[in-house]
Amino acid sequence: MTFNDTLMNLSKDKESKLCIGLDIDSDRMPNTMDKSLLGLQRYIEDIIDSTSNICLAYKLNMAFYERYGSKGYALMEKIVEYIDNRNLTIADGKRGDIGNTTKKYALSIFESIGFNSITVSPYMGSDSIIPFIQDKSKGVFVLCLTSNTSAKDIQFKKADNKTIYQNIAELCSELNNNNNIGLVVGATNPEFMKNIRDLNNLPWLIPGIGAQGGDLEQSVQISNQNSIGLINVSRAIIFAGDCNLNDVQNAAISFNNQINLMVDNEK
Amino acid sequence: MTFNDTLMNLSKDKESKLCIGLDIDSDRMPNTMDKSLLGLQRYIEDIIDSTSNICLAYKLNMAFYERYGSKGYALMEKIVEYIDNRNLTIADGKRGDIGNTTKKYALSIFESIGFNSITVSPYMGSDSIIPFIQDKSKGVFVLCLTSNTSAKDIQFKKADNKTIYQNIAELCSELNNNNNIGLVVGATNPEFMKNIRDLNNLPWLIPGIGAQGGDLEQSVQISNQNSIGLINVSRAIIFAGDCNLNDVQNAAISFNNQINLMVDNEK
Repeated sequence: MTFNDTLMNLSKDKESKLCIGLDIDSDRMPNTMDKSLLGLQRYIEDIIDSTSNICLAYKLNMAFYERYGSKGYALMEKIVEYIDNRNLTIADGKRGDIGNTTKKYALSIFESIGFNSITVSPYMGSDSIIPFIQDKSKGVFVLCLTSNTSAKDIQFKKADNKTIYQNIAELCSELNNNNNIGLVVGATNPEFMKNIRDLNNLPWLIPGIGAQGGDLEQSVQISNQNSIGLINVSRAIIFAGDCNLNDVQNAAISFNNQINLMVDNEK
Repeated sequence: MTFNDTLMNLSKDKESKLCIGLDIDSDRMPNTMDKSLLGLQRYIEDIIDSTSNICLAYKLNMAFYERYGSKGYALMEKIVEYIDNRNLTIADGKRGDIGNTTKKYALSIFESIGFNSITVSPYMGSDSIIPFIQDKSKGVFVLCLTSNTSAKDIQFKKADNKTIYQNIAELCSELNNNNNIGLVVGATNPEFMKNIRDLNNLPWLIPGIGAQGGDLEQSVQISNQNSIGLINVSRAIIFAGDCNLNDVQNAAISFNNQINLMVDNEK
């Protein structure tokens, strides 16, 4: 089974297109909570137990773990092991190297830690992507269009009448022989999102919803036309209310229901 | 003292522009050697003791450590600690995220591990660079022009009569208020290298020399015009001969002498 097929099937089974970003950050937790690494681990494990039936996937932003050095890296390994394939897992590391180096990253992410998929930065071109897509059961989400202001520095540049982000979307179509490539598309201008959705029906991973304020409805509707748009929400779920698990669970249910309703409305 | 000033001064003191890539890879070592993580650690430490007086900097390609999971990450921490600022250190992680995430990477690389500098992928634009350059003593090498075939997928695209790699070189000039930005420029076509050197005098980090076959002489001469070009050699030094320390040291001395001679010939 290819990664993109697994993504579609699991989304139907779980009735979810929600990805929860497990971007642990002790600064956002009340001081009454245990902020040791063991305390953070237990909090994340509790979040997983409270939400794994609700969401489709978990995304771990690697920076939030590497910030604690090798002990944080070990925490990331424990979290992926704890999820234990109840949900899909995304290593949000935006790795972007070539050849032998990228092969080592693939070993690191897919085998050593055991993630199902990774985010990749394409500045070095297809050489950065190809070593990650050899195993069709493992997925790659390639940075295409991001919602930050300085996306204009590269992504919006126009060469041969096409923006760089359109070039990347097309490159990913060409490379998708194993049906395991998706795109990272920020919740940005609907016109730009439509430009990309018109080019192919690769799955999208959409960050920037919730605390970051992206437009949920437009992103859900455009991304899910003839494909799947995975909506990532981090802070607005894992630090919901005062970080008690009822608040976290209710936030996950609420986002999931909103997303499903928007998809239904579009049909 | 800014990172770029430190780089220039230390290069003069050590009479070196050589960077040794500590990309440990047990597959390239004779089977008679101890290939456990402790064995690798001791081999790298011996290489450092044999070459720290010869080279200017060490570059650790993070993939070659992350490949071993959290234990490999811990090995990387030990190696940086072992170098103990005898030489400059470069975290070759090509990280490329934005805002709060990039701040966490800066904490991870500069404070938790203690590297002096990092390589960055600029697909998301200046937002990926700015959080890394706040501390003027820490340096950033931004991917500009790489020597792999698929560099054409983005870097050679021409927008407004300028290639993307020229755009990135100019963006880095604009951002260099703290004098701590450099560029990653592959040992590629001399004409392209000259295009970049003409735009500014930022330091360059040049990978792809030695085992990867880049043209040493052209790279050295163009990069060192009115600035400094740091020449990285990995496999051709750390796996020289049959991996005995004499061979390693002699390879480092030979590369360093060649580089210095080429700079002198240019003057």
